[in-house]
Amino acid sequence: MGATHHDCLVIECSRGAAVESAHMVDAALVDASGQVVEAWGDIERFVYPRSAVKSIQVLPFFESGAADETGATETEIALACSSHNGQDAQVAAVRRWLENTGLKEQQLECGGHLPYHTETAHECVRRGEAGLAIHNMCSGKHSAFLVTAKILGEETKDYIAREHPVQQRVSAAIGEMTGWDISRSPWAVDGCSIPTIGLPLHALARGAANIADPSAQSSERQAAIARIRAAIAAEPFMIAGDGRACSDIIPALAGKAYIKFGAEGVFFAPILELGLGLALKVRDGATRAADTAIASLLAYLGLLDSTAQKNLAAYIETPLCNWRGIHVGTVRAVLEP
Amino acid sequence: MGATHHDCLVIECSRGAAVESAHMVDAALVDASGQVVEAWGDIERFVYPRSAVKSIQVLPFFESGAADETGATETEIALACSSHNGQDAQVAAVRRWLENTGLKEQQLECGGHLPYHTETAHECVRRGEAGLAIHNMCSGKHSAFLVTAKILGEETKDYIAREHPVQQRVSAAIGEMTGWDISRSPWAVDGCSIPTIGLPLHALARGAANIADPSAQSSERQAAIARIRAAIAAEPFMIAGDGRACSDIIPALAGKAYIKFGAEGVFFAPILELGLGLALKVRDGATRAADTAIASLLAYLGLLDSTAQKNLAAYIETPLCNWRGIHVGTVRAVLEP
Repeated sequence: MGATHHDCLVIECSRGAAVESAHMVDAALVDASGQVVEAWGDIERFVYPRSAVKSIQVLPFFESGAADETGATETEIALACSSHNGQDAQVAAVRRWLENTGLKEQQLECGGHLPYHTETAHECVRRGEAGLAIHNMCSGKHSAFLVTAKILGEETKDYIAREHPVQQRVSAAIGEMTGWDISRSPWAVDGCSIPTIGLPLHALARGAANIADPSAQSSERQAAIARIRAAIAAEPFMIAGDGRACSDIIPALAGKAYIKFGAEGVFFAPILELGLGLALKVRDGATRAADTAIASLLAYLGLLDSTAQKNLAAYIETPLCNWRGIHVGTVRAVLEP
Repeated sequence: MGATHHDCLVIECSRGAAVESAHMVDAALVDASGQVVEAWGDIERFVYPRSAVKSIQVLPFFESGAADETGATETEIALACSSHNGQDAQVAAVRRWLENTGLKEQQLECGGHLPYHTETAHECVRRGEAGLAIHNMCSGKHSAFLVTAKILGEETKDYIAREHPVQQRVSAAIGEMTGWDISRSPWAVDGCSIPTIGLPLHALARGAANIADPSAQSSERQAAIARIRAAIAAEPFMIAGDGRACSDIIPALAGKAYIKFGAEGVFFAPILELGLGLALKVRDGATRAADTAIASLLAYLGLLDSTAQKNLAAYIETPLCNWRGIHVGTVRAVLEP
């Protein structure tokens, strides 16, 4: 059966009666063997997955024994897969996790910034606090890296380096799950200082498919994937936070799929119900387009019922409002049903 | 002599050895009669000029007699043409201007927001202050609207409405300067609630050309244009503020041109030295691409000497740094000299 190939998905930002700006999006829907089921635009294009592959990057945390040894909770597993807002409950949970495993937040090497969540950032400013590494959107993932290194008796310092065993295991897992020979990949440094490995978009989608349909994986990896899927379903707030696409859309999917955002307009979505993987990249990197594109593609794939679509209206047809709250335009996908 | 037509200008955002995201930019260089001199991409495409045409929108402030009647200073004229950061000196100057003309900041109808300048916004947060209309990037332009209505004895309330004589004069000036029949235009509501009128990109560039070469304009309009050009040259900080392309690039141009940003990736640039107008629009609306595109096109046109190019390196080849300050990539234009 041949794959359906569409033109690139276009996200239009209208103002009044005219389109003011537009974003081009490539997307691939792929099965666990790498077979393309449906494609939009150019799926051979290399993308840096950035934080979109956190649920692959966390696999060594389980396979090293670190998760079991430390009794990792669903909250901690979800945080390890998150790009969180730095909201109070998220920061407190990361702090507790580090304390309980005998680590210090000063050991985090992700770099500091004010919480992504505006109100929480303003609370820090009011208290005269600087942005810390624990507020970094990636502090949960970095905590899992630190815990793994510690449990394995590895040097924790410089765990972000490409040569460090922590990152060696992470990049091996990315290669295995995507079926892509990462020695052919461009490498770069991510926002949180770990390596990010360029892959064709279809390979990224295959990584998601191998989470949705892990039947070809080892039983140990299948067990890890089951725990990751359960934690993300149970703790969607921890994945991102208030006002963020991942946290709003995951509950609406009711277990049929999950999604994970990555910087520069990437989404990674294991479509659990179909045993397929979806990945997308906005060519210009805009978050507004990525959010609308993922919500629209999930609706297109029949994964959002009418109630869910109504609840997610702000993502599917995002109203643009000005400083007086006047509705001046709309962000929407051009996508035939 | 035929115009040079190029493909659309591409702004590449690299990370490591690979391009991660890219932006497409249309641009037009036009003379005062509307003749196209050089073009990149599709210059027939309609764009909303947004704040890029503030130095046209301010013309009625002079032609109504309001500027002379109130003894408008260069600071006030620059603020009328600005999208300012809401920095202390800018807000104080707008406040003084309104007080001196017997107006209240509560009469501003642009809507409130925290200052665009992060440190100033944090100062407001520390003091427990909300974002006010006076902090709005457009409060200078709105002050000129209010002063004009007051001097002409018009109702000041609802001066933002399309039917109000203030906006009628502004849209007439846009039609005259661009040579475009605005009855054929899509209209929309801007971020600051006044109308924004869609124009083909070449018409927007012609508006800039008629500032650079005002010889076809009435002597009254020529006088207004001379004062606007002088104020922008004298007060570049007031046009935008610290860390902003307009304020950093205008002084480097040493009177050869000025530039004005508009939301969704627009620039408007009267090239005074050549008597031409340049306008550009990033198709996806990204500011990072607009800043790099305008700096690169000004360098391409020979308007930035080697010292100026060195001083503006952060716009021409913008380093992308991560949360630890590691240089991870670069934003640059793909533009043959």
